[in-house]
Amino acid sequence: MEEADILITGCTILPMSSKMTIQDGVIAVKDNKIVFVGKRSSAGNIHAEKKIDARGKVALPGLVNCHTHVAMTLFRGIAEDKPLNVWLRRHIWPLEAKLKKEDAYAGALLGCLEMLKNGITCFADMYFCEDMVAKAVSESGLRAVLAEGIIEAGNKTKGEQMLSKSIEFAKKFYGNTNGRIYVMLAPHAAYSCSPELLQKIRENASKLEIGVHIHLAESAEMFKELEANYGCSEVEFLDKIGFFEGHTLAAHCINLSDMDRRILAGRGVNVVYVPVSNMKLGLGIARIKELIELGVNVAMGTDSPASNNVLDMFETMKFGTLLQKLAYMNPEVLPAYETLKMATVNGAKALGLERSIGTLETGKKADVILVDFSKPNLKPLHDVYANIIYACHGGDVDTVVVDGKILMEQRQLNTLNERAVIEKAERHAANLLPRKP
Amino acid sequence: MEEADILITGCTILPMSSKMTIQDGVIAVKDNKIVFVGKRSSAGNIHAEKKIDARGKVALPGLVNCHTHVAMTLFRGIAEDKPLNVWLRRHIWPLEAKLKKEDAYAGALLGCLEMLKNGITCFADMYFCEDMVAKAVSESGLRAVLAEGIIEAGNKTKGEQMLSKSIEFAKKFYGNTNGRIYVMLAPHAAYSCSPELLQKIRENASKLEIGVHIHLAESAEMFKELEANYGCSEVEFLDKIGFFEGHTLAAHCINLSDMDRRILAGRGVNVVYVPVSNMKLGLGIARIKELIELGVNVAMGTDSPASNNVLDMFETMKFGTLLQKLAYMNPEVLPAYETLKMATVNGAKALGLERSIGTLETGKKADVILVDFSKPNLKPLHDVYANIIYACHGGDVDTVVVDGKILMEQRQLNTLNERAVIEKAERHAANLLPRKP
Repeated sequence: MEEADILITGCTILPMSSKMTIQDGVIAVKDNKIVFVGKRSSAGNIHAEKKIDARGKVALPGLVNCHTHVAMTLFRGIAEDKPLNVWLRRHIWPLEAKLKKEDAYAGALLGCLEMLKNGITCFADMYFCEDMVAKAVSESGLRAVLAEGIIEAGNKTKGEQMLSKSIEFAKKFYGNTNGRIYVMLAPHAAYSCSPELLQKIRENASKLEIGVHIHLAESAEMFKELEANYGCSEVEFLDKIGFFEGHTLAAHCINLSDMDRRILAGRGVNVVYVPVSNMKLGLGIARIKELIELGVNVAMGTDSPASNNVLDMFETMKFGTLLQKLAYMNPEVLPAYETLKMATVNGAKALGLERSIGTLETGKKADVILVDFSKPNLKPLHDVYANIIYACHGGDVDTVVVDGKILMEQRQLNTLNERAVIEKAERHAANLLPRKP
Repeated sequence: MEEADILITGCTILPMSSKMTIQDGVIAVKDNKIVFVGKRSSAGNIHAEKKIDARGKVALPGLVNCHTHVAMTLFRGIAEDKPLNVWLRRHIWPLEAKLKKEDAYAGALLGCLEMLKNGITCFADMYFCEDMVAKAVSESGLRAVLAEGIIEAGNKTKGEQMLSKSIEFAKKFYGNTNGRIYVMLAPHAAYSCSPELLQKIRENASKLEIGVHIHLAESAEMFKELEANYGCSEVEFLDKIGFFEGHTLAAHCINLSDMDRRILAGRGVNVVYVPVSNMKLGLGIARIKELIELGVNVAMGTDSPASNNVLDMFETMKFGTLLQKLAYMNPEVLPAYETLKMATVNGAKALGLERSIGTLETGKKADVILVDFSKPNLKPLHDVYANIIYACHGGDVDTVVVDGKILMEQRQLNTLNERAVIEKAERHAANLLPRKP
């Protein structure tokens, strides 16, 4: 008789290593790893202290959110229906200037709570006060790839200081919290950092053997500005200065030429598709089908609640596939299974974690979610992938396991105190932004 | 001391008669009507048998879903990621040919259950076996505008028979179920009915003093076919034959010329914007901003779960506004409040029910929903309309009142037995579409 810590039985399993599904499946977890995934009939006799009867539920790898700024959860609902420039300059930046460490922590905790409840088990974040995000990740039990943001904006000294801080953060948190925290360096964008700084960032990332997380080709306006300065596209510019020589996580990628797409493919850049935020800010459509055809690894992200306004990858997946069907006027583009891959396997790969997470396979870290398929919106069940992508919502997630720990069971949280997290966020939001009467 | 049946207290109220919100509000319901809406401080002493403590909740008019085929809830998840033609001809139509009355009833019940749980209190439906939909509406306690569909498709006798059936249905159900069921006639589309039949439908609708519900300018392909036959656009054709002379509910309206838009405005046609289904089938974007600027009343609809795949107007509102921001590359287009109007006031008007529902005002029928704003995705609260449109989901609805009856309270249903409805739907779906092993 084998020994495990957690035994999940009776569910339909979507391992995401292939399109095959497992009916009446069993997942066994020992320490922080998956030690068995398969049919109940081939599971043998596994003993475990903790058993989860998952009949009527669907197990899938925890969802991977590859682009967010989680502390900005505090800003949800400010500055709505505004152009990007006004949104940034008149609302977001002045607020960020006032943001204290404790505010960032309160926002990050609320964001982690929301992600956990929505079945997101791993996320990539770039922002200021990233040590506060690390604290929230540590307490929530989630997995994350964190980076202290670097924005030069014409001020060389500031750029250097931020790079130092970003490196310091990376060194401090590398392999922290039982290996649940990973790090990157994160220049804000090609237009807000000088070529020299961008090159230094890449050099340091290479030295530390970590990746780089950047906003790329998000805004047509900024794109034109950069083109005027450098005489080429954002992608061409970054390629010329050697920025793509190493692991790169590039969010948005809306304004790309065919040449840009080929460069991204050639350099193995990981693209993060951010459909909700791109639509909400009226920025355009990233043409994902073409990227996939060129062999680019495309993952998905929510962006922050300031431009989304939720941290729900189920919603992002539905928006993401529907937007591609619209872009190509073809409902066959980006079918349900391919979309779910973007939020699991491809997400893991985009973060350089494909050997640890992204699928449900023996030996992988135990990041598992159970979706409650007894809900009326998931009935009847003709196609499990279609129900996940087109009919499911974060609120349908029942159980969340990360790194072998049960963080949520039957929607009850084990690590975070929901009421306390919400009250803390409300207090800090009220201080930062007093409500109009 | 005044007497009421239900007294809802302590909530923030969005009456939707203007953008003004009421803090610490009171709603009193007597019989099936609202008898008071206002601040607690001006409510006086109202006595009621049933009191609902709604602190931390937001009250808004029940959402109005202006286009669906609710029996098709049974088809959720079949034939995914397929072109419209294949979807219809190979999957939907063969299934519909096998559909029995009891199947339609099972599907309609599941759809009503889902809508109720998502805060949709009134919907417009067109399909076959519409008497079964009426039965489901009657049992669920919802409000609906129902129409037996008419599709000629080259068969004149069939067209006449369907018209007769549609008229018979309208006469039978007119003012049925305590006034909660209203009726229309529903020709499928301009391309699937002859001009003579369309004219007869309008004449009969006028005689019965009811409206007409039709699919309009949904598919570019069908549009071209019609243009080749009649030498003009769908809208011009319908206008020429006098089809718009009376109340019209026109779903989709994607492929419109400027002239078409002016005709719709001039004739007072009510447009139903169906963003999720239009994106999913890769059909294009209805340009809503231009319609609104011409003074057209624009409502919103989910379409059926076969092409959406959920009956959630919160999701439809988010898709709807984000798609317009994208279409015009401008985040200021269709702000949150205007979007909520489309799913409440404009929806009521589109169904000819603006004197009964659509706002929370004294004298209106009591169709009220309470949204639970204690959820983490609705925190912090900087902008109540933004949280409703961009961060809310059907699952956040806590309480639903229709026609003065509490149909759901703290997510517990009073009229429908959730488990029985789901099991019935599953049985009928399995009979109709045996699952592959």
